[in-house]
Amino acid sequence: MSLAANNPALRSWVEVSKNSDFPIQNLPFGVFQTATAAPALGVRIGNHIIDLVAFNRFDLLEDIYFDKSTLSQASLNAFIACGKPVWQAVRQRISEFLQGEEVNHSRMAQYEEDGLLVPVGKAQMLLPVQIPSYTDFYSSIEHATNVGSMFRPDNPLLPNWKHLPVGYHGRASSIMVSGTPFHRPKGQFKPADSETPIFGTTRQLDFELEMAFIMGKGNELGSHITTAAAEEHIFGFVLFNDWSARDIQSWEYVPLGPFLGKNFFSSISAWVVTLDALQPFRTEQPTQDVAILPYLQTEGNQNFDIHLEVAIQPPQTAETVVCKSNTKYLYWSVAQQLAHHTINGCNTQIGDLYASGTISGKEKDSFGSMLELAWRGTKPLQLIDTTERKFILDYDTVIMRAYAEKDGVRIGFGEVSNLVLPAKE
Amino acid sequence: MSLAANNPALRSWVEVSKNSDFPIQNLPFGVFQTATAAPALGVRIGNHIIDLVAFNRFDLLEDIYFDKSTLSQASLNAFIACGKPVWQAVRQRISEFLQGEEVNHSRMAQYEEDGLLVPVGKAQMLLPVQIPSYTDFYSSIEHATNVGSMFRPDNPLLPNWKHLPVGYHGRASSIMVSGTPFHRPKGQFKPADSETPIFGTTRQLDFELEMAFIMGKGNELGSHITTAAAEEHIFGFVLFNDWSARDIQSWEYVPLGPFLGKNFFSSISAWVVTLDALQPFRTEQPTQDVAILPYLQTEGNQNFDIHLEVAIQPPQTAETVVCKSNTKYLYWSVAQQLAHHTINGCNTQIGDLYASGTISGKEKDSFGSMLELAWRGTKPLQLIDTTERKFILDYDTVIMRAYAEKDGVRIGFGEVSNLVLPAKE
Repeated sequence: MSLAANNPALRSWVEVSKNSDFPIQNLPFGVFQTATAAPALGVRIGNHIIDLVAFNRFDLLEDIYFDKSTLSQASLNAFIACGKPVWQAVRQRISEFLQGEEVNHSRMAQYEEDGLLVPVGKAQMLLPVQIPSYTDFYSSIEHATNVGSMFRPDNPLLPNWKHLPVGYHGRASSIMVSGTPFHRPKGQFKPADSETPIFGTTRQLDFELEMAFIMGKGNELGSHITTAAAEEHIFGFVLFNDWSARDIQSWEYVPLGPFLGKNFFSSISAWVVTLDALQPFRTEQPTQDVAILPYLQTEGNQNFDIHLEVAIQPPQTAETVVCKSNTKYLYWSVAQQLAHHTINGCNTQIGDLYASGTISGKEKDSFGSMLELAWRGTKPLQLIDTTERKFILDYDTVIMRAYAEKDGVRIGFGEVSNLVLPAKE
Repeated sequence: MSLAANNPALRSWVEVSKNSDFPIQNLPFGVFQTATAAPALGVRIGNHIIDLVAFNRFDLLEDIYFDKSTLSQASLNAFIACGKPVWQAVRQRISEFLQGEEVNHSRMAQYEEDGLLVPVGKAQMLLPVQIPSYTDFYSSIEHATNVGSMFRPDNPLLPNWKHLPVGYHGRASSIMVSGTPFHRPKGQFKPADSETPIFGTTRQLDFELEMAFIMGKGNELGSHITTAAAEEHIFGFVLFNDWSARDIQSWEYVPLGPFLGKNFFSSISAWVVTLDALQPFRTEQPTQDVAILPYLQTEGNQNFDIHLEVAIQPPQTAETVVCKSNTKYLYWSVAQQLAHHTINGCNTQIGDLYASGTISGKEKDSFGSMLELAWRGTKPLQLIDTTERKFILDYDTVIMRAYAEKDGVRIGFGEVSNLVLPAKE
């Protein structure tokens, strides 16, 4: 699929720095507010936000027929519900509005004064979607193998793993936007040297590097979404940090899965990169070397070539990049995840979040969690400031970034960044 | 706690049959609609519903200060958000309105004409709450032991089970009100005689008899709810059928828990029985013979003595009661469940549903699922029509009922009833 708004030759009269995640070919959607204005939908370009309420006030959306009150909501959900033709038309219209050969500072200044262009520094980003349900998959074979081999060295991958995209339901209520700090959680766990479980502050706080998609169109209970139709249901992607407390998780998770080890906090990036913007970055999936059932089969390039990285930043210190990975490593594609999730008639809803699971690559510096990077604490990482990390410490900020790049165009996700505060008294 | 509305001596001028679940001491809340009116909140008495919109129109709630527009919503959530003093005052006012020594048919007829009393036959019940999140616990030791012993005869209970109320996140979107039929789900499973998994219609459709509570007041992310405070957060209880496909579940659930084996459909009873109405039925919890951590400790009677039963009704045949159980058997109380769920700072929201897990007793006829009743299909149940059941067949209706009884007062839940339709083509 080739969309006009994706043309690599396009330039904007809004200034976009060379390494920006947000050139005119990206135009992701989000929700923001300012000190003087209520929440509104916005589209990012360079270091500015197009305020869609103002954009509409200038009659620039007049001939695109949809409920314009969806633009002044505190989440994207109502706008998404207007349907894919509307998202595409609005994004195309914004692209046309922004096109220009030269940066035009006076035009930028005028639109800033009019409130149509908002400098990102003046905006607070909100959670972009109200999330009815959240599911976490486990789709990286490298991650599943790493974790499995710590506990079952002879048989790391479980028998079902190559036959279906393993997943589980997570907690939607505790997913917050990038920039939100949180307190180290407490809970029950059983240290190796203890006969009985104890109550305390987690000693094994970890990140999980994930990509997640947001539903653009749901399905009714009793119906299902085929792999071929899956992408018609996807609005876009966000970067996702599935914060985990490994000691709590390992004590609780047998037999019903992760619970308090995960549900204390998760975080997503503020800008939803549309599936349309990512089309140029399609790539092959890893070979699935075990025969899969017809309902999971797909055609064409199902993966996306998106670079991922994770950095740890202690207070008053430079960050250390501890992981570089890529979404192209994922064994199971989003089409397969969605087809599997609904094959039993499970209904989905606009705004649902479906996360990939930790995305690890083959190399040791491509593992997407501290559990793997420091191999259960046996191989601590050294940071630039010479301190060591087995897991994440109080006052560390963990920053994840993602971008795709091709033909000189970089489509980025911004970041998902969270500061860890000490446990509450 | 003794509430005026619970007085066993109270009688109503509205007719209430001797074995009704809905005497004046119950007064549960629900949401209904009729052929001629939009959804409204209602309170059940005998075979009638008090239409709260009409009740308010008669100025009967004038001196109780809350947003009356919450009464004409399609869910209880906004009304619940008005706070416990409001729920209690409204319930008390309805109780006073309904009190009378003798059944008064002419008064009933007048109020029916006025639309204040709606015969249940003219109403369609809707899902009473919009459910932001749903968690399923595993709090019956008899159920956990039964299921565990099928797979691990020597060690049925896992090491964590007596230390914490094991639970997992379920799918909120597919929870429907009693009376909703559903199609037998399809999915992937691996029959014992097959080398590889197959795709097909589940052969092991099962019910799970559960009780669930609905949140009346949430907590902020990073805070927690103590066992002592837990009941201040609970609005009421519903009966819950956690429909399960055992073959799909057993193939998928290791290591991350149940997923497609559960999320195709679940169902709750239409009337939310308030925690207040259940206070007279408090009873002791089973002895917890392993020391538990302080954050899970409680004082006083934490369980409720509520009779439960499950019946299977094939088409054009009398039903067979296949299970009689009781919520008093639950090893973990609702206060413990909620304290555990939030001890790590997980936030909860009004309308959240927290289910007990299958409630089995010690006797073979008290097991709360077909998996246990027919012991993995090895001991089929015989129904009144002489047909056998290992699991649930197409066109069976499964009906769950629950009631508490004391001092001649019966506080019931009505039923949760679902007809199983064949898989879709």
